[in-house]
Amino acid sequence: MTENTMQFNKLFYPNSVAMFGATSDVRKWGFALFHNLLKGGFDKPIYPIHLKKDEVFGVKAYRSLDEIPGDVDLAIIVIPPRAVLDALDQCARKGVGAVVVNTGGFSETGEDGRDLEKKVARLARDAGMILIGPNCQGIMNTDAKLFPQMMGVYPPGGRISLLSQSGNIGGNLIGWGKKWNVHFGKFVSTGNEAVTTCADLINYLGTDPDTDVVCAYIEGVRDGAAFVKAVNGASRNKPVLILKGGSTEAGRAAAKSHTGSMAGQAHIFNAACKQAGAIATGSLEELFDLAAAFSALPLPGGNRVAIITHGGGWGVLAADKAQKAGLKLAELPQNAVEVLDEILPDRWSRGNPVDLAAGGGRGIVEKVLDVLIDLENVDAVLMLGIGSAVIFKRNIGGSSYHDRERIDKLSARAEEIEESATKYALETIKRTGKPILCCSEVVNSPYEAESAAFKIMAENGMVLYPSPERCVRTLAAMAGYSQRRQSG
Amino acid sequence: MTENTMQFNKLFYPNSVAMFGATSDVRKWGFALFHNLLKGGFDKPIYPIHLKKDEVFGVKAYRSLDEIPGDVDLAIIVIPPRAVLDALDQCARKGVGAVVVNTGGFSETGEDGRDLEKKVARLARDAGMILIGPNCQGIMNTDAKLFPQMMGVYPPGGRISLLSQSGNIGGNLIGWGKKWNVHFGKFVSTGNEAVTTCADLINYLGTDPDTDVVCAYIEGVRDGAAFVKAVNGASRNKPVLILKGGSTEAGRAAAKSHTGSMAGQAHIFNAACKQAGAIATGSLEELFDLAAAFSALPLPGGNRVAIITHGGGWGVLAADKAQKAGLKLAELPQNAVEVLDEILPDRWSRGNPVDLAAGGGRGIVEKVLDVLIDLENVDAVLMLGIGSAVIFKRNIGGSSYHDRERIDKLSARAEEIEESATKYALETIKRTGKPILCCSEVVNSPYEAESAAFKIMAENGMVLYPSPERCVRTLAAMAGYSQRRQSG
Repeated sequence: MTENTMQFNKLFYPNSVAMFGATSDVRKWGFALFHNLLKGGFDKPIYPIHLKKDEVFGVKAYRSLDEIPGDVDLAIIVIPPRAVLDALDQCARKGVGAVVVNTGGFSETGEDGRDLEKKVARLARDAGMILIGPNCQGIMNTDAKLFPQMMGVYPPGGRISLLSQSGNIGGNLIGWGKKWNVHFGKFVSTGNEAVTTCADLINYLGTDPDTDVVCAYIEGVRDGAAFVKAVNGASRNKPVLILKGGSTEAGRAAAKSHTGSMAGQAHIFNAACKQAGAIATGSLEELFDLAAAFSALPLPGGNRVAIITHGGGWGVLAADKAQKAGLKLAELPQNAVEVLDEILPDRWSRGNPVDLAAGGGRGIVEKVLDVLIDLENVDAVLMLGIGSAVIFKRNIGGSSYHDRERIDKLSARAEEIEESATKYALETIKRTGKPILCCSEVVNSPYEAESAAFKIMAENGMVLYPSPERCVRTLAAMAGYSQRRQSG
Repeated sequence: MTENTMQFNKLFYPNSVAMFGATSDVRKWGFALFHNLLKGGFDKPIYPIHLKKDEVFGVKAYRSLDEIPGDVDLAIIVIPPRAVLDALDQCARKGVGAVVVNTGGFSETGEDGRDLEKKVARLARDAGMILIGPNCQGIMNTDAKLFPQMMGVYPPGGRISLLSQSGNIGGNLIGWGKKWNVHFGKFVSTGNEAVTTCADLINYLGTDPDTDVVCAYIEGVRDGAAFVKAVNGASRNKPVLILKGGSTEAGRAAAKSHTGSMAGQAHIFNAACKQAGAIATGSLEELFDLAAAFSALPLPGGNRVAIITHGGGWGVLAADKAQKAGLKLAELPQNAVEVLDEILPDRWSRGNPVDLAAGGGRGIVEKVLDVLIDLENVDAVLMLGIGSAVIFKRNIGGSSYHDRERIDKLSARAEEIEESATKYALETIKRTGKPILCCSEVVNSPYEAESAAFKIMAENGMVLYPSPERCVRTLAAMAGYSQRRQSG
């Protein structure tokens, strides 16, 4: 373990945490941070630092760091900017390994703030401390049950790590993840990056055994070469997904007022990152979709895909998107067509995409899936339109114009078929090591949470994509990354 | 009213409907179609045609159309292909105005089917009947409570009309609409278009007083010139949104097996449609997002936008997307900045996007909105990040580490603020005639349905967009359409 890694371990896996500004006053940021640290379940010593109170939420408080009996690995600072230097002095004296400065009012506010930030940086560097911020929302690490951050989310542990130059984007992605049990492990709101930069963090996460996927929302980097070098190293081990904010003049102006960062030329930045092996995403939704898939699915061995669809139109849109995104629709060998002829109704598409043509009876999808995924020229399968049994149930179920018993039976059967096919898909991923991505019209409909497919996917931390286009886009990114990994 | 319009009125507003193949046997398509026709509440005479039974679901059945005492405006045909010609003969004799042939097994299946389809077409043309299909999922018209289609959805009335060369895409979009009360009025699954084409339908919908927005999913058209001419006419009156399936070789091959249509060169098709004033969309989600906005919001007078954001990162991404999509971030005049200085905390962004910098207290968003929307150089406002009060409530609410009463009060206050701001936005749209589009991280989180903003938007048939990118993309399409309308 390098010295650098050991240092970062004090940030993410501290044996004790002190917080300057911890308070029970709900109007203050120090409330949210301290509250979340406690509620998150961090089970090692916690030391609130408070100038007047003897305890905060029943936890013994100290007047200063000096008074704390044991060592302090990590200090959180959320006090007015003028008091930050003194707190850092205490940290240096105490031998604290890592500091997070949540406090704002530094370089993002103008000349005076810039001067103060320089002093903060010098102090931290001289003491050899990692310093996150200032002007950030905090950090989290689910593996250490460490949640000193503004959002009150305490995911149970995840293997996606996220760096963000915007706090709200972190909350946004983590919130979306909750719906699918796609959990983020480590999160760092990097703020002004006075000392520790995204590049440093990417270096660490690249070899972090608890991180499978690295995501970064970047508005600007001061040292482009260091950033690209870090990406280059990390992306040899795991996918590095980047969303660039400030890719236009208008966005750069907004970024400047936001984090004070000079966003730089996005196309140069993106080209350099891509060259270094990163995956550039074009939107928050794309970043989320990809992170979820990379964390839950095996990589495809190549770019050849087979598509199973419950509806013709979806198959067409998926085929279009696949070709545009660099995927190749696998040609079905004659013997596979013959086997499918036995399984499917006459009107099936007799090609890829395999349009089931309303032939999705009991066990059919499973059989079709077996035929396709075992083909040598198929690297991945898309299943489009799974999950709609509940739509039938909700639409027809309440009606009086029918044989109720019969409808209930049909409805239950449709749900059984869906449940079985979804579970089979998950088992097949394990059996074959090939990824299967699913999408359904039930997602974003009013009934999604009642759908068997939705429930099974979410229980397994997997996303049921809302549209064929997003499903295909995600697989294409995986195939592209897989190819780069293989070629070097 | 033209003769053509009168004829189409028999399709969409019939005074009576007959159905060949109506049945109570739930395994058959004739069950779903007849069931949905009944359950949808069509309140004029309905005549099931059944060779053996005297009634279907208690409705008197007839052996043939000839036996029906009154006139029949619309006939639905869902019987085996070999029996279709005889049914059409009966329709011709009876003077039926419009026929929908749901039955498949025509040109999409090969040579024999093509021959049969030609005969069907000739018979309908000779009798002067509108004929939808064959090989389609049916039609609907909410204003006439007319739902002879496969999906069991009966929206209460809407002003978006949708033509689709794929049935499942219709169900998909209508399902998404249910979540937001974004309702489709008329839907036609056009099938093989043996007689009546999308072009004919676009001509009708272009002057239909009950349609404000025309959407079309198109895989292929046989007569490109007629299609473009129809789009050109309709788009002078209302937005025509097109999603093209089969825009690649892979997609065209899939489309061929799906609807038997030759998809043609997508770039030529898209260019011609755009020239004719249509709005080309790139995905199902985009088609839905745009249709919802066009149906619920006034058009912006130009492309100058002001952005209010609760989070810096979202502001940056929105600004990027705005510039890329052809929108212009309005420059705030000095006096507006001064007024906002009075309202917002010191750290606000002092520019557009207006980053509230956590300054969204009671009545603040309303005041900021007033300042921005009344500016002469602002044509539309985006509100990013409204709707997250429930996230605070759910995250902090259940905790024991706090003054419970105080948290409950804060939580209730946050919801009040959100409710008030959302309602105010809707009132402001009415007052000013300028569109306001909102997005929120609560959408697609597990708590969306509990959010005050979500509820208020959905009650008013408006979408709360899930990301800044989709919010901006939608406004840009509206601005583009508005500009074309103004320039002639």
